[in-house]
Amino acid sequence: MKHTISVLVENRFGVLARIAGLFSARGFNIESLAVGETEDPEVSRMTIVVGGDERTLEQIKKQLNKLIDVIKVGDFTGKEFIEKELMLIKVSINAKNRNEVVEIADRATAEVVHLGSRSLSIEAVGDSKKIHSLIEALKPFGILEVVRTGRIAISVDDKEMKAKGKPEVNE
Amino acid sequence: MKHTISVLVENRFGVLARIAGLFSARGFNIESLAVGETEDPEVSRMTIVVGGDERTLEQIKKQLNKLIDVIKVGDFTGKEFIEKELMLIKVSINAKNRNEVVEIADRATAEVVHLGSRSLSIEAVGDSKKIHSLIEALKPFGILEVVRTGRIAISVDDKEMKAKGKPEVNE
Repeated sequence: MKHTISVLVENRFGVLARIAGLFSARGFNIESLAVGETEDPEVSRMTIVVGGDERTLEQIKKQLNKLIDVIKVGDFTGKEFIEKELMLIKVSINAKNRNEVVEIADRATAEVVHLGSRSLSIEAVGDSKKIHSLIEALKPFGILEVVRTGRIAISVDDKEMKAKGKPEVNE
Repeated sequence: MKHTISVLVENRFGVLARIAGLFSARGFNIESLAVGETEDPEVSRMTIVVGGDERTLEQIKKQLNKLIDVIKVGDFTGKEFIEKELMLIKVSINAKNRNEVVEIADRATAEVVHLGSRSLSIEAVGDSKKIHSLIEALKPFGILEVVRTGRIAISVDDKEMKAKGKPEVNE
């Protein structure tokens, strides 16, 4: 089963390596990981998508909460949330098929961010399904580069999940 | 100085922890990290933004190339590239100021992705400056949650940087 975990951490040296190590030591493979600053530059938020069973995940959440740099651990499993990722994709083009590639981007509500003589770069935001469909549609033209951010998630209830606060296991 | 590094890795167990560990062992603090699959599900790309001096960075790139799971290491330093990140931000609203928040999102070409009775969630894509400006504009309303992906980058030349290939130190 896939789980989306949100971890608020103090923006300190080595914290990322410690957290990644914790997941890999338990045999969880991290499917996607995104780390960015919050509104407080001293606090970062990691969004981690992992596959694994419920019981091991509970153990990892407890271990995470024990780490001194971890402020809060959130688990989106079973909750209502919005999940998005960003992709930059570069496709091989020529004078003949350029318009066709631009049309595919338009239909996918993706944006052409660079147009070169032999390649075209597109920016797309969406859920994994949308991103996957766009990659498949562009494959016949020749994909030169795919860069994806990994998924981030935000809950759609009105409850606060602030940067500062006490660690909570069952958040 | 800030460096944007792109690392293509075999999508294997523990590779993320090894790479994060390599940076932290050398005293580099990772400012932003994004990991996502490429068009080949067995290959992931990590985009890492780090601050540090040129010489240590060269050492890290050499160390990265020695890791068995690393396919290719790219360095955007001094090159022309497009850098973007994705943010989901949830802001506190009431009946009075709701329209004002929607207008701020519109002006920033950001999208309202959820509208609750007491909160509103916005999706924004852009460079760090745009993201930062939007956060500042929304602060007076009360920010409930900020989730950012970390930056990803794509070169704007027509050169290929494919998923499969021999490791190159000076790419």
